[in-house]
Amino acid sequence: MLVTDSIQCDFFEGTEKLLEVWFGAAEATNQNVSLDLRTIPRHELDNLLGLVKAEIVSFTSNRWTDSYVLSESSMFVSENRFIIKTCGTTCLLDCLGFLLGLAEEYCGFDCIKNLFYSRRVYLKPEMQQGMHQCFETEVKYLKEFVPNGSSYILGQNPGEEWYLFTMDNAVDFDERSDVTLEILMSELDQKKMVQFAKACHPNAEQMTKKTGIADLIPGAIHDGVVFDPIGYSMNGLYKDSYHTIHITPQEECSYVSFETNLKLKDYSKLVDQVVKTFNPGKFILTMFISKDGKSSAMHRRTLSSALNVEGYQRVDLDQPQLKNYSLTYGCFLKCNA
Amino acid sequence: MLVTDSIQCDFFEGTEKLLEVWFGAAEATNQNVSLDLRTIPRHELDNLLGLVKAEIVSFTSNRWTDSYVLSESSMFVSENRFIIKTCGTTCLLDCLGFLLGLAEEYCGFDCIKNLFYSRRVYLKPEMQQGMHQCFETEVKYLKEFVPNGSSYILGQNPGEEWYLFTMDNAVDFDERSDVTLEILMSELDQKKMVQFAKACHPNAEQMTKKTGIADLIPGAIHDGVVFDPIGYSMNGLYKDSYHTIHITPQEECSYVSFETNLKLKDYSKLVDQVVKTFNPGKFILTMFISKDGKSSAMHRRTLSSALNVEGYQRVDLDQPQLKNYSLTYGCFLKCNA
Repeated sequence: MLVTDSIQCDFFEGTEKLLEVWFGAAEATNQNVSLDLRTIPRHELDNLLGLVKAEIVSFTSNRWTDSYVLSESSMFVSENRFIIKTCGTTCLLDCLGFLLGLAEEYCGFDCIKNLFYSRRVYLKPEMQQGMHQCFETEVKYLKEFVPNGSSYILGQNPGEEWYLFTMDNAVDFDERSDVTLEILMSELDQKKMVQFAKACHPNAEQMTKKTGIADLIPGAIHDGVVFDPIGYSMNGLYKDSYHTIHITPQEECSYVSFETNLKLKDYSKLVDQVVKTFNPGKFILTMFISKDGKSSAMHRRTLSSALNVEGYQRVDLDQPQLKNYSLTYGCFLKCNA
Repeated sequence: MLVTDSIQCDFFEGTEKLLEVWFGAAEATNQNVSLDLRTIPRHELDNLLGLVKAEIVSFTSNRWTDSYVLSESSMFVSENRFIIKTCGTTCLLDCLGFLLGLAEEYCGFDCIKNLFYSRRVYLKPEMQQGMHQCFETEVKYLKEFVPNGSSYILGQNPGEEWYLFTMDNAVDFDERSDVTLEILMSELDQKKMVQFAKACHPNAEQMTKKTGIADLIPGAIHDGVVFDPIGYSMNGLYKDSYHTIHITPQEECSYVSFETNLKLKDYSKLVDQVVKTFNPGKFILTMFISKDGKSSAMHRRTLSSALNVEGYQRVDLDQPQLKNYSLTYGCFLKCNA
């Protein structure tokens, strides 16, 4: 057990870049193609991650999803959806052209059905590489592949802005019900953070259980990685849903992200539990719900179920209507913090 | 008269950065203060423009407004509103702190009542200096002065995005009715552009009259400047309204901007006339109308009066609701162009 109350260490940019691409085949084809992203060979995924400047450190899978923990965050590959989330100074979007090539060559996917690229504002943008220093150049690059995407900047509070680029104009977008919840936490309780040092819990299984992470989504498979000397990443799979947690414990740049596509009618319990597990000084919550025929009243109920968090004051709220998704952004500050 | 059909010249970034600040005095004061920005001495305005890397090349004024044509665009100073618009690789926002200091020292204005910063995406962002290379760093800087501003990215078409940062949360914003119309034109008809060479019209008065610019807002005072060998800037004053036009004729980077706060019930005639005067291949139109008690039906009529332009197809439309303003963004392409 660490005896210090907090963790002093070098700066690390925990803030992730997150890319989610949904693929389709524009024309019915007689060729022998898989129409399944999971048939992309491992060495090609390694090549792709070489462009990003990250690598695979752990793999697990179930019937629905191939899950990869990366040296910097995570990758989830399912039939027609590719998710890659990378932190640090990785060059996430450098892989986009290569990814589209792999999807066509190995799987027969020749069109992007939808695309989301999002991130919180960086702590130190000047440390990012190339196009990733600013959203404007990221968008310029994305539009070389997706010319007619829309861009959003949500959040007024300095340091809590959240940037999103999405197609959201896909006329033939016909995915099944889709939800994505993210909770991006900062200024974390150092009493919680000391648990995520190798000196405290030497292996991932113990760290996942003892810290309460295993209880967030009961019944899930957990693939956790403990970094040396500090830091933790975990990919979880539960039926057709994934969840992922990444922890940068260092006091001067502490950051924890939680993300899932688990479908719930009411998210208040899950959000409360995540927040209690890490005890952040502030956090952003974002939530997408696809408009798939459900009533707008049901949408509002589900979205609003994540908007009151015990012990926190909601200081900002933004709910833009996208074409295919309802989106909520909230910013929360700890009461009496 | 030029004999060439088009103008070959070095690249110039015509795209302007536009800052508009409304000032107020938070507390009634007994001090001998002017509460009028026009009392800032000229040498201080020169100092301010030194930070921006621009200088005054012409001055005119009327009862309401002091108007300055700059080496790169324009500046308008009225009682409690300061507008500065600069193109090229100027460092517009570098003057913000100094401006706030001048407003307090010379005028007794100790608070910002509203602030707007906007620009189209640059043609060559990599040529911009410091924070101005990207909107993300511009916003970060602006929030040092205005912590709770909102940011917008309007427009889906690559190269036609328009960025806006504004407070729009000023609870005590009580300005009189306010409108701002901008028309940002590119890919201009070179038959029109050759008129804006010194070789074609050696003085500004002639250029303003012969090109139809003088007819856009009849009765206005025009202060025009012809640049050598090509280019033109003009500030116009008509009663309490201003308008301003800046022209970069070079074929590979042609750009013309028109801006006014003239209040009209119907903008269709003015917009048509501006567009016919310059004949762009495409343009962005933006329009702010303050929510000052007018009915929303009247707002919609006024806004929509600028949204159908003969000979052009509207390819993009975005109408976000700000707290104190209705905003419209439209992108137009020439038919059969």
